[in-house]
Amino acid sequence: MRNIALRLRYDGTAYHGWQVQKNDVTVAETVENAIFKLTGERVRVTGCGRTDAGVHALRYCANFKTECSIPTDKFPLALNSRLPGDIACVAATQAPEDFNAILSCVKKEYTYRIINSRIPDPFERDRAWFYPAPLRTEVMERAAEKFVGRHDFAAVRSVGTETRTTVRTVHWCEVERQGDLISIRVCADGFLYNMVRAIVGTVIYCSEGKLAPEEIPALLDTRDRRLTGPTAPPQGLYLSRVWYDGAVGDMMA
Amino acid sequence: MRNIALRLRYDGTAYHGWQVQKNDVTVAETVENAIFKLTGERVRVTGCGRTDAGVHALRYCANFKTECSIPTDKFPLALNSRLPGDIACVAATQAPEDFNAILSCVKKEYTYRIINSRIPDPFERDRAWFYPAPLRTEVMERAAEKFVGRHDFAAVRSVGTETRTTVRTVHWCEVERQGDLISIRVCADGFLYNMVRAIVGTVIYCSEGKLAPEEIPALLDTRDRRLTGPTAPPQGLYLSRVWYDGAVGDMMA
Repeated sequence: MRNIALRLRYDGTAYHGWQVQKNDVTVAETVENAIFKLTGERVRVTGCGRTDAGVHALRYCANFKTECSIPTDKFPLALNSRLPGDIACVAATQAPEDFNAILSCVKKEYTYRIINSRIPDPFERDRAWFYPAPLRTEVMERAAEKFVGRHDFAAVRSVGTETRTTVRTVHWCEVERQGDLISIRVCADGFLYNMVRAIVGTVIYCSEGKLAPEEIPALLDTRDRRLTGPTAPPQGLYLSRVWYDGAVGDMMA
Repeated sequence: MRNIALRLRYDGTAYHGWQVQKNDVTVAETVENAIFKLTGERVRVTGCGRTDAGVHALRYCANFKTECSIPTDKFPLALNSRLPGDIACVAATQAPEDFNAILSCVKKEYTYRIINSRIPDPFERDRAWFYPAPLRTEVMERAAEKFVGRHDFAAVRSVGTETRTTVRTVHWCEVERQGDLISIRVCADGFLYNMVRAIVGTVIYCSEGKLAPEEIPALLDTRDRRLTGPTAPPQGLYLSRVWYDGAVGDMMA
């Protein structure tokens, strides 16, 4: 029995997120079906995190156990010919028996993309948040850095997923502007439900003058979701990096 | 009565090309409907060229006559709020009475995008030709330059559109590689039906060793479409630039 880790990349527009659900088509289910077509085995694929409907992944790690004899390095091409065009398997590696894509994950980075222009870009419509009013990047930068460090992030999460603690460590939270494109990259040891989208909404709130960056630490202390900014829309969000030890870490680098 | 020229940008994935057809949804019809919603006028929009189903436009020029009193500079935002997200109006200007988006066009450039990688990119699936076998860029460059100049291009067009002559002047035909992305840019005073896609297919033929770049001039002389390469798929093709004199030329620059 091998434990295979896959490096995936997907455009999440057509999916109801990663996680298998009863009635909606998900990325996990689509990958499981491709594995079934290839191996004849009905496996359960473990993903490195839940992504919501419309959220994308530049790098995503998933693992599954198999008794098939297909060489590990044959999986990417063999799966791609059985996957739809909006999901690709970029690489595969044999992982240690106890490897688990979510539990073994050291840290993750999400990137949120905003097109800040009066004119929408048709090629970005499902891949960024179109925000036509001017944004003050410098204020956004000052707001973003307030999230860095070990904090209770209950004020920037949506209720819906149970979690033991709402304390997380954010390693970086950076705003970068290149022309009309603003990218916000957030790296943490773990993320609460909708945390990045709520951080982005709060950073935008600061740009709009509805909140001062200096108020953010006190707002986090309140643990009150109603006091921070709205949840930014899903199509701007990308899981951009995931870190692991060992061979899986090398594959995802 | 004003003659308004629009600068458009569209993702052609969902459309049966530019030109209005009986049963299929086209870009022209969608733009005409947006103008109707805005002005109450049923106008006929003239485009700078026909694009096929699935072909995109980074810059596209269209013009129409109107008796409405809406200021010209209000058209972009007003149209965008009435257009679907895959078509955007980037700018508008008042054109001379006799301006015609296709007849007044001085030259046009198309860009063809190829993703040359063993692994498909989900974010490029409707926006480039996925070509997994290795391509020899240097051979492609030598093949491309054979199309430059004044030639009879009957050997690289699909039959279907009537045209007075099949002689055109290609100003440049260039291949550029950046990582996995190969771009082929072709500029000419005019294009025959499917001409760029047949040129791309012929350039690829040369990379595959099915044809030598040196044979291309003689093949063009035969005027025989069966001797050149296949028509490359539509999703890699973009109308990238259009040139005009005067104010419309400034708007499209």
